[in-house]
Amino acid sequence: MPAPRTSAHDDRTERIMRTTVALAREVGYSNLGIEAVAAGAGVGKHTVYRRWSSKGALFLDSVLTLHASSLDYPDTGDVVADVKRQIYDAVDLLASDEVAPLFRALVAEAQRDDEVAAALVERFAAPQKAKTVARLAAARSAGQIAADADLELAMVTLSGPLYYLLLVTHEPVTHDVVDRIVDALFAGLTPRA
Amino acid sequence: MPAPRTSAHDDRTERIMRTTVALAREVGYSNLGIEAVAAGAGVGKHTVYRRWSSKGALFLDSVLTLHASSLDYPDTGDVVADVKRQIYDAVDLLASDEVAPLFRALVAEAQRDDEVAAALVERFAAPQKAKTVARLAAARSAGQIAADADLELAMVTLSGPLYYLLLVTHEPVTHDVVDRIVDALFAGLTPRA
Repeated sequence: MPAPRTSAHDDRTERIMRTTVALAREVGYSNLGIEAVAAGAGVGKHTVYRRWSSKGALFLDSVLTLHASSLDYPDTGDVVADVKRQIYDAVDLLASDEVAPLFRALVAEAQRDDEVAAALVERFAAPQKAKTVARLAAARSAGQIAADADLELAMVTLSGPLYYLLLVTHEPVTHDVVDRIVDALFAGLTPRA
Repeated sequence: MPAPRTSAHDDRTERIMRTTVALAREVGYSNLGIEAVAAGAGVGKHTVYRRWSSKGALFLDSVLTLHASSLDYPDTGDVVADVKRQIYDAVDLLASDEVAPLFRALVAEAQRDDEVAAALVERFAAPQKAKTVARLAAARSAGQIAADADLELAMVTLSGPLYYLLLVTHEPVTHDVVDRIVDALFAGLTPRA
């Protein structure tokens, strides 16, 4: 996930975020209460609300900040290998026992809180899309990707399958599955002449 | 969505399901209470709990039953057109103003209730996958799809992008976007010789 765009993290802010994530793991996101977070972090409720407008906003900031990962694409010159590597990294993070429950709760909250949904796009989906398009544009310039490939959609076709597995079918996303998905997207369904 | 697999729907069952969906629309899924559903349907709480083990189970059954749609693939002989047609139908249903909030709430609940997650796969994702594989297998026999195409993954690569747009970025899924996604998946990223 991208580096936090928030301003300086003082110790108190960090403590509130760590308490939020620890409590969410312990009691589940739906049972998480701002009061309990404040008590656990040793601050007043108003201190929490001064910085975060809602429980969803606090949770999103805490998860994305504490599990920040740039998820950059390597550029070894082999675009297929580089895309696989980046998706391994994303999957190893998002599907890990540590992060998966937090990420699922975050996406769940985004279904009912439009501010959380917008922040998830701004801090996570949009930066990832920009990196994906940049890496594929370089590959296109190198002749490794079809000249008429629809790069604007590349994030959607490359990441969509993973989110479907993570959020809908809850199937394990192994590196082997990532390989098969990426190979299928590069090869296409239409028979080669 | 698939036809309901539940047993005979008597009037009371139907009334409870309609009340569930109407109340969920009105107050939001998170504020939906079994007590209010029972009162609205004119039955006792125990009547609801006798049939459904949890609020999540009641909601899932209500949404999938009342908005049942078979989402079958046509077979006109043109696999690209048929796949697009089926995805238009899915999108027109799931992204509609009427159903989208219910579907989002359902996927959100599946993130924290394993029974809801399992039922969503059994009643929705698995039957859709079987239909997708069957239609593509017919196309492969007809030489319209590469002989080595990984059909087991086809549901994931074809549907994943839509769920990503619906659940993560919340972007509108127009028929034009569907066309671009399907065309990209058939063409593949690798340049044609």
